[in-house]
Amino acid sequence: MKVAVIGIGTTEFGENWDKNLRQLAIEAGTKAIIDAGIRGRDLDAIYLGNMSAGRFVGQEHVAALVSGELGLSIPALRIEGACASGGLALRQGIFSILSGQHDIVLVGGAEKMTDLMTDGVTSSLMGAADQEWEAYYGVTFPSLYAMIARRHMFEFGTTREQMAKVAVKNHHNGFLNPIAQFKKEITIEDVLKSPMVADPLTLFDCSPITDGAATLILCKEEWAKKYTDDPIYIIGSGQASDTLALHDRKSLTTLDATVKAAKEAYKQSGITTKGVDVVEVHDCFTIAEIVATEDLGFCKKGEGGKLLDEGLTEIGGKIPVNTSGGLKAVGHPVGASGIKQAVEIVLQLRGKADKRQVKDAEIGLTHNVGGSGGTAVVHIFSR
Amino acid sequence: MKVAVIGIGTTEFGENWDKNLRQLAIEAGTKAIIDAGIRGRDLDAIYLGNMSAGRFVGQEHVAALVSGELGLSIPALRIEGACASGGLALRQGIFSILSGQHDIVLVGGAEKMTDLMTDGVTSSLMGAADQEWEAYYGVTFPSLYAMIARRHMFEFGTTREQMAKVAVKNHHNGFLNPIAQFKKEITIEDVLKSPMVADPLTLFDCSPITDGAATLILCKEEWAKKYTDDPIYIIGSGQASDTLALHDRKSLTTLDATVKAAKEAYKQSGITTKGVDVVEVHDCFTIAEIVATEDLGFCKKGEGGKLLDEGLTEIGGKIPVNTSGGLKAVGHPVGASGIKQAVEIVLQLRGKADKRQVKDAEIGLTHNVGGSGGTAVVHIFSR
Repeated sequence: MKVAVIGIGTTEFGENWDKNLRQLAIEAGTKAIIDAGIRGRDLDAIYLGNMSAGRFVGQEHVAALVSGELGLSIPALRIEGACASGGLALRQGIFSILSGQHDIVLVGGAEKMTDLMTDGVTSSLMGAADQEWEAYYGVTFPSLYAMIARRHMFEFGTTREQMAKVAVKNHHNGFLNPIAQFKKEITIEDVLKSPMVADPLTLFDCSPITDGAATLILCKEEWAKKYTDDPIYIIGSGQASDTLALHDRKSLTTLDATVKAAKEAYKQSGITTKGVDVVEVHDCFTIAEIVATEDLGFCKKGEGGKLLDEGLTEIGGKIPVNTSGGLKAVGHPVGASGIKQAVEIVLQLRGKADKRQVKDAEIGLTHNVGGSGGTAVVHIFSR
Repeated sequence: MKVAVIGIGTTEFGENWDKNLRQLAIEAGTKAIIDAGIRGRDLDAIYLGNMSAGRFVGQEHVAALVSGELGLSIPALRIEGACASGGLALRQGIFSILSGQHDIVLVGGAEKMTDLMTDGVTSSLMGAADQEWEAYYGVTFPSLYAMIARRHMFEFGTTREQMAKVAVKNHHNGFLNPIAQFKKEITIEDVLKSPMVADPLTLFDCSPITDGAATLILCKEEWAKKYTDDPIYIIGSGQASDTLALHDRKSLTTLDATVKAAKEAYKQSGITTKGVDVVEVHDCFTIAEIVATEDLGFCKKGEGGKLLDEGLTEIGGKIPVNTSGGLKAVGHPVGASGIKQAVEIVLQLRGKADKRQVKDAEIGLTHNVGGSGGTAVVHIFSR
């Protein structure tokens, strides 16, 4: 598999009170079109990742909405797999090019979470979990991930300080990222002393509620050099599913969907963990980054906390994780995060990540999760 | 393009009070798996069309939910383009096989509309229209299609009786279809005297609110004969978009997205309207069937009413339309309707449509619309 990324674009992530969903999507889309040096009419299709515009802003049918706003009449569709919607949209955009049906495709992710149409955002987000077997009993996403954290602490001795280090590192990286919602350094103490959300997770262990959009322009391999001297190639894509309900799984401390998706992506690309230079993982909560680095094979199960103690996942470390600032500091507009991860990896592989640049980055990996692990999707990128 | 359909399955359509969304999807999926003579573990992926489970039953992430319930961990994703979600899921399932990434794929559509989670069903359905430029001003789908009807009457002299004939024909066909929500013959007078919904459309001009699911098993062409002596092939797929808002279009009486999608599907398949033996169109309202037969090229613009006067679209007519009973009589579980259309065409081409059978049907066409024409998708099937 080989498909090129020839353009990227993002809005600022945060509370974008002055922009609605379509404006966010159009802004990121237009930036990516300009970055690719193409015209709108060169596009063959639009794949838009969006988790819950129906509940957040009362609008379904969002991909055709964006196509219409761009003045285009091309095929446009929304892809949804909860917070993995962006990564899934990317995967389908790739498939459409590999199928020979499309040559150049816009793949976007967009979410407007601060204009709530129906009910609370926490309740709407529970649409990603099993409504009948989890949500109805009062569980929320912080409490699902708190159970994962508690069990990880019990099984492997992972500490609150190690989790806090994820937030500290990602806030440091976000401080260097112009689009980040939180451009503010924090300390371990800040995390530990922040208000309790779901024991053991405090406020600074949780990713925020965010408006934002991100876009990639994909192009078939043979055409990439027509548009850019610096194409980045996607060389592996893996996706897997698991039960939505956490209690149906055999383990609380491994996301099987991540393990399977990664295995497929590594196999397709011929890359092993040793070959990866920079990684964006799905840190919706700090514990999620620890579990992800283990499930992706960057350390043994249970040793994710040690990676942080040794500074190995910092920019300049052996395997930098979430150089963008992650969901934690850049913010987590749920359907857009998977595409934002890809934008960061493209920037890193282009050597254009400015103060966040990982030296000589050649291979990057993105890891996007839906719900508490019902969906996982992994992509591998190469210069 | 050539991909095989080797299995089909549907639930009964109607008010399925005793089944929730996952049960509907699993029932249709299991029937299709059995019909194909495969095992669940032969599947490579699940593509599920669903418009608005987030608003109807509080559940997003529905494809992984179904995968988990089937005991599978394969890639699963939801495809959404309002009422065209089913047709779009089919298209992406086809692309995934053409891309070489998958061999056998389950493509489903499911919607549970009678268990309302958030607000009214009419309000939820308006998520398919432009929320900010249509819904906020009080327009509903019946009133959007009433404007199309009124304009069609003005421009072409289309009559109320001609619209009523769509309902009469489709109720007749539905009467012969075991899965139909309405198995009841009606008369032109019944339609004209039924309660006014949005002038000139009365209750019997409108498709109902429905629970239901439908599934196809797709397989790469080379493998089809391993599983069935009677594969049906998909030989053309077209999709196009338009502005969501009706007032932004240049005409009220043509859906440009239908015209473009059909053009692409005809081109890919090498089939012209003359070669088509049986058609399922998106008759969410009676006027929509009239407009669709025109836009698909089965008659000149403005002459859709005449097709009905002459009985040409009846079973036994020159070009039978909606032999299943259509959205009007089978019911319209919005994300499932596009797949139900394909199931009917497969039955017809297999020669297994019982009392609805079109003699010697070799080529069939499905036409699925999102919103008032923001999305249209057309597929062409061959024996």
